[in-house]
Amino acid sequence: MNDIAELLNSATTDLTWQRDFYRDLHTHPELSMQEERTASRIQAKLADFDCEVVSGIGGHGIIAIFRNGEGPTAVMRADFDALPVEETTGVEFASVAEGVTPQGVRTKLMHACGHDMHTTALLGCCALLDDLRDQWSGTFIALFQPSEENGAGALAMVNDGLKHLMPVPDVVLGQHIGPGAAGTVMSKPGPALTAADTIRIQIFGRSSHGSMPHLSVDPTFVAAMIVVRLQAIVGREIPPSEFAVITVGTLTSGNSNNTIPATANLVLNCRTYNDAVKHHLYAAVERVVRAECQASGCPQEPTFEYTDHAPLTDNSPEVFAAVRSNFDAVFGVDSIDGTPWTASEDFSQVPRAFGAPYLYWMVGATPRAQWDAAVAAGRVTEDIPSNHMSNFLPDFEPTVQASNLAAATAVLTYLKK
Amino acid sequence: MNDIAELLNSATTDLTWQRDFYRDLHTHPELSMQEERTASRIQAKLADFDCEVVSGIGGHGIIAIFRNGEGPTAVMRADFDALPVEETTGVEFASVAEGVTPQGVRTKLMHACGHDMHTTALLGCCALLDDLRDQWSGTFIALFQPSEENGAGALAMVNDGLKHLMPVPDVVLGQHIGPGAAGTVMSKPGPALTAADTIRIQIFGRSSHGSMPHLSVDPTFVAAMIVVRLQAIVGREIPPSEFAVITVGTLTSGNSNNTIPATANLVLNCRTYNDAVKHHLYAAVERVVRAECQASGCPQEPTFEYTDHAPLTDNSPEVFAAVRSNFDAVFGVDSIDGTPWTASEDFSQVPRAFGAPYLYWMVGATPRAQWDAAVAAGRVTEDIPSNHMSNFLPDFEPTVQASNLAAATAVLTYLKK
Amino acid sequence: MNDIAELLNSATTDLTWQRDFYRDLHTHPELSMQEERTASRIQAKLADFDCEVVSGIGGHGIIAIFRNGEGPTAVMRADFDALPVEETTGVEFASVAEGVTPQGVRTKLMHACGHDMHTTALLGCCALLDDLRDQWSGTFIALFQPSEENGAGALAMVNDGLKHLMPVPDVVLGQHIGPGAAGTVMSKPGPALTAADTIRIQIFGRSSHGSMPHLSVDPTFVAAMIVVRLQAIVGREIPPSEFAVITVGTLTSGNSNNTIPATANLVLNCRTYNDAVKHHLYAAVERVVRAECQASGCPQEPTFEYTDHAPLTDNSPEVFAAVRSNFDAVFGVDSIDGTPWTASEDFSQVPRAFGAPYLYWMVGATPRAQWDAAVAAGRVTEDIPSNHMSNFLPDFEPTVQASNLAAATAVLTYLKK
Amino acid sequence: MNDIAELLNSATTDLTWQRDFYRDLHTHPELSMQEERTASRIQAKLADFDCEVVSGIGGHGIIAIFRNGEGPTAVMRADFDALPVEETTGVEFASVAEGVTPQGVRTKLMHACGHDMHTTALLGCCALLDDLRDQWSGTFIALFQPSEENGAGALAMVNDGLKHLMPVPDVVLGQHIGPGAAGTVMSKPGPALTAADTIRIQIFGRSSHGSMPHLSVDPTFVAAMIVVRLQAIVGREIPPSEFAVITVGTLTSGNSNNTIPATANLVLNCRTYNDAVKHHLYAAVERVVRAECQASGCPQEPTFEYTDHAPLTDNSPEVFAAVRSNFDAVFGVDSIDGTPWTASEDFSQVPRAFGAPYLYWMVGATPRAQWDAAVAAGRVTEDIPSNHMSNFLPDFEPTVQASNLAAATAVLTYLKK
Repeated sequence: MNDIAELLNSATTDLTWQRDFYRDLHTHPELSMQEERTASRIQAKLADFDCEVVSGIGGHGIIAIFRNGEGPTAVMRADFDALPVEETTGVEFASVAEGVTPQGVRTKLMHACGHDMHTTALLGCCALLDDLRDQWSGTFIALFQPSEENGAGALAMVNDGLKHLMPVPDVVLGQHIGPGAAGTVMSKPGPALTAADTIRIQIFGRSSHGSMPHLSVDPTFVAAMIVVRLQAIVGREIPPSEFAVITVGTLTSGNSNNTIPATANLVLNCRTYNDAVKHHLYAAVERVVRAECQASGCPQEPTFEYTDHAPLTDNSPEVFAAVRSNFDAVFGVDSIDGTPWTASEDFSQVPRAFGAPYLYWMVGATPRAQWDAAVAAGRVTEDIPSNHMSNFLPDFEPTVQASNLAAATAVLTYLKK
Repeated sequence: MNDIAELLNSATTDLTWQRDFYRDLHTHPELSMQEERTASRIQAKLADFDCEVVSGIGGHGIIAIFRNGEGPTAVMRADFDALPVEETTGVEFASVAEGVTPQGVRTKLMHACGHDMHTTALLGCCALLDDLRDQWSGTFIALFQPSEENGAGALAMVNDGLKHLMPVPDVVLGQHIGPGAAGTVMSKPGPALTAADTIRIQIFGRSSHGSMPHLSVDPTFVAAMIVVRLQAIVGREIPPSEFAVITVGTLTSGNSNNTIPATANLVLNCRTYNDAVKHHLYAAVERVVRAECQASGCPQEPTFEYTDHAPLTDNSPEVFAAVRSNFDAVFGVDSIDGTPWTASEDFSQVPRAFGAPYLYWMVGATPRAQWDAAVAAGRVTEDIPSNHMSNFLPDFEPTVQASNLAAATAVLTYLKK
Repeated sequence: MNDIAELLNSATTDLTWQRDFYRDLHTHPELSMQEERTASRIQAKLADFDCEVVSGIGGHGIIAIFRNGEGPTAVMRADFDALPVEETTGVEFASVAEGVTPQGVRTKLMHACGHDMHTTALLGCCALLDDLRDQWSGTFIALFQPSEENGAGALAMVNDGLKHLMPVPDVVLGQHIGPGAAGTVMSKPGPALTAADTIRIQIFGRSSHGSMPHLSVDPTFVAAMIVVRLQAIVGREIPPSEFAVITVGTLTSGNSNNTIPATANLVLNCRTYNDAVKHHLYAAVERVVRAECQASGCPQEPTFEYTDHAPLTDNSPEVFAAVRSNFDAVFGVDSIDGTPWTASEDFSQVPRAFGAPYLYWMVGATPRAQWDAAVAAGRVTEDIPSNHMSNFLPDFEPTVQASNLAAATAVLTYLKK
Repeated sequence: MNDIAELLNSATTDLTWQRDFYRDLHTHPELSMQEERTASRIQAKLADFDCEVVSGIGGHGIIAIFRNGEGPTAVMRADFDALPVEETTGVEFASVAEGVTPQGVRTKLMHACGHDMHTTALLGCCALLDDLRDQWSGTFIALFQPSEENGAGALAMVNDGLKHLMPVPDVVLGQHIGPGAAGTVMSKPGPALTAADTIRIQIFGRSSHGSMPHLSVDPTFVAAMIVVRLQAIVGREIPPSEFAVITVGTLTSGNSNNTIPATANLVLNCRTYNDAVKHHLYAAVERVVRAECQASGCPQEPTFEYTDHAPLTDNSPEVFAAVRSNFDAVFGVDSIDGTPWTASEDFSQVPRAFGAPYLYWMVGATPRAQWDAAVAAGRVTEDIPSNHMSNFLPDFEPTVQASNLAAATAVLTYLKK
């Protein structure tokens, strides 16, 4: 056991408030850009600590600056928005909240990605570091980022003057919970999360009464052909050894039973680990969409809007080396190697803005017995609820504990006296 | 010129109010089941006439009973709901109204099917018959039906006790405007409008994060395959000499950019002129949907809900013979033969409920010069806005006049002294 | 009973040779352009009659001219090629013949369209007219046409100088067997058979090893997308009240297990009753094919070759009126109204070349009990083998008799003294 | 420079016959199982060397045993069949040969995979070793394998008693030419080539005349839907980080223009690097095919036949280590690391049969200037002809030299005194 492990091991900080705090967030999820209530809860909790709080950055973004003498500056980040998913976990504190998407669609909401846990754990880390002030020196900044799900929040904070609100960090740290035995901490150097872009596509057909298809150009049919054909880009155009995902996250066309609509809308999410693949992929998507519109004789060219850009998350080998040895000391056999995740994050926008090195790791959230059984049966994919699923729910106690400690460990790697 | 032609020719009823009335309805369209304002406008106008009004039948349905001594009972019907279409006519009285569909989707609204004209003309017919009371005897009933677009209004009126609110009719009459030289009246015996059903289908996949398609069963892809494959039912399974339409009026799947949703929803509208074809068609739709779900390994069977049933509109040869000779007398060369329309109507639900014979005809609404040019160029399909299109707009003067007269002519065929 | 009925009723011509002749043809089917044996059998039989024979017209075409004094000229035509279908009738005289298509594919052969019956019956008609020479005057021409299945034979005979080999006919007659109670004769004025064209399409992709799809442009995938999308032309672009068929008769792509081929080939057969529909259909086919090639990034434009053109078969109302009254006299209740057939024929090329009026009728070939049972059960489509099916087999006795008599009746309508 | 490098460097063996020998094979390609001429040319050349030849093993397979005293046994293998590809290289010795596939299809043939080069180089290796007999001891076996392209030849040799015809080898070696700077030798330990299977699928529809699709179940449409949907297995069901290829190598349906056929045939080639992925893939293929047949109402279940199995080629780390150090000595900077190839081979069937370790490496065949330009332009994929392409042609001189030397180097690694 090393210094940091010993220190955290002997810490007596009261974290019993975390369960209620977490459940409160979980019961009241809010969509990206609309996280007013969540932000106010975070601020309320921060009032317990000796820190400077700046709020309302890039929407509902918040930083809490813990100044503690000379030394480096370490940032730990958590995100706090939720998803338009209808919860099916069946727990007593399950969400029944509703919201309206930017497209005007009313939807049920859920913390199906675990951001409630990230936020709870970052506040736990604040509590630990606030308690252990005599053990470290420098500046610790807890960064609470809104709007991660639409990939806009980190950049919004940067663009709202983040650089003028805090010192240049020496390191930026972040974590995410997901499938894995609850309490394990999974880290790796290099590429950890994919680059991603959202492509919003509008198809222009010609409307007519549903009984007169020959007077229409049916955009629903065009959209369907596109959805079908996009998968062949993955299967036929991308080298089979390369990573590429094209997911149609939203398809909407028409809103009545008997009118062929004039337009259809597609929202695509594309992910890659490699720039050449990305460029081919986007060119192929546009080629396919344009050609399918031509095949049906659409009267107008389709439009493409690229949004929600997420850069590649590419962990610094130096930060990894430094933090990992402490993870190993603190978590023992539960500090394991991560594999590249297929997901994306806008996490790296903040370190990129400052030119700072960064590390992003995962924390397992699956009840350990369930995880072990699924691994033994070779049924992880089938049996383990994953992020964004309506039945995703972290095993609270081991997950929050590991998340608290991992965050504090990584920060102390840079700030420990 | 016969008696009725002479009578209507010499009528001096003031109908100048019709333009304002029509524009008011046009500017304020309301969705099916929500026609509160429109119904109140109709009632306000009916107050000008000597009739008994019963309102609130099957929602916002209204009947106005003009009793005038002994004789047969003739019903003339107009519908008055509007569509979730965004108007592009550019006229000064164009609609900017919005509404919320039963599925909770906010949408622009438009009288894109001409029901505002039908209603205006039925009130015009009321004015004429009220003025000409000494020329006819019996009972004239003006029936204002809501909720035609969802196929539910006529049956809703029947099921709300219509039989107890009015005498058994000897004939039920109805009309619809559409493409054709404005002022022409198009009638035919036998099948005039298709049978139709709406099939609401829900596909059950498995949700996951958009970057992990292998953890999902992607219902958007399944829905797209279904949309694509349904057209092959028409092209491969239905005898090519038979009429069959399968239109996907609505397709919605997902509401975010980076989550594969758990379900997708399809709303189909199917039309036929023939029972055997209909039964094959519906069986084939269910077969295709179920098999596509199996092909993707959906964890749950799809569901099917049949709604908005519209029966075949099958004109009585006797009513046709009687009314047509008067149309010929009143409209001369502008009384022409109709061809079967591809659309459907719930119009026949009322005469079916009473066992009464019926006639349903069309009135041309296209500016005559535009129509003639399109016919000459062989470009009717391409150039003439049709019902449900966002630029459909009747040529007011000739259309309302022909509609007023056609309604009065048909009623007087039965009630003229 | 009229004159012709009486005459044919009392004819004593020996037709017992027909069964063996028919079975011989049935056992030895030959592909279009390759009907050498069949032509020699026809010529051998014609040698029994008093007629001039010209053979080798447009390939294996034959005319037999029966001159019999002054009077009009009537042509009766039969076709005699077979199909690349493997017979499954199970009869003792079933075909086991093989042939090689023009594309070089070895295939089993079958008279699955009944041309063996047409030929047998035209020879029966020759026998009858040869026997009854004293009852008629004028010129009777029996025209035996090869290569009907590829739509080329009639035009090949015309282009090989048919006009110089025979007098201008006053009428041209033809018949075809098919589903229907054996012995019934089905006739109608006006459109009887569809216009048809074959469109041969070649798709150009880029070949590669099967394990390296990213180096290829996969023409098999492009061809599949085209096959799928073509049916949407029928379902979405053609007015639902119009007749339109697009059948992919042949699709071939690749010839190994592990090479993505460079090209794919499609052979389409398109049928319509209406020129405007036809033009839209062909334009849409080309639009869809070109766009699907673009969607996959094909390095070269697809090519289109239009072949096997069959014109609309549009029966002369005058010929129909004249012949039908004699059919009614000869066949009684078995002379019935025909409905438009979905199939096509190049039959009308000969009368078109001469500017002569024509009539084409159908003869039922299904065992009567089987037909009646299927009609009663509403299972004609499911239960009755149709032309081109591998189990299509006419009920010999009533079919050949009706075919003999119908041909003779129609010819005598013009030539009877 | 080490011993082997020095030895081979100073060898004076006459290899000038190789150019003519190679061109002769190239001009006369033969399909798998039909390599009679090629086998006779190999045997003729082997007659020049001091070895025992056994021919006709598993078809046209040949082994040449060079016994040379005590010591280990090393096998070097080359394959010698060709492909149904039409050559477009334009060289004077280009193939114009034709053949007939097992399915009866006539096709042009080409050595588009470089087996002519493999064979020429193995004979070159024989010449070198025969000349250098005093430098090595043990047994060298040159194994000439037929029918690699259909994946059957190696197993056919094993099943024809190979074990009784030769001693148990201590090592089995093989090489393949492909894209890469001519003369480079690319090697790696572990997985080098994919596991592959061919799945032959027959779809059963119902035939009918092309104009009567409603009487048919169109197997061409079913096959097209399957081709389209298979790519979604790759894009939606396989983890995006895993390697999976589904290629439809052959699709044939129908052989006329106007008959909907009764059956369609698909030949799939599937490749993976991982057993779990393979099992999921094959189950998904069967699920998709069965469901698409159900969607169209096919009267009979589809059939699946698994053939042309190629096991994973998984290089022995020990053999790699031993041979690679000699490659480095002989080729210097032209001995480079290989990356896993997407292709498959039945090469490993022979060492598997004997339980012997093995190594399989690649030799670059692209003219060096062309390769360097393509790499610099980032256009390797677009510009460099790859195996199985119709314009694939090795740069003879550097390719044959490197292939000769690589084979001899690897053998001498085990047999050098």
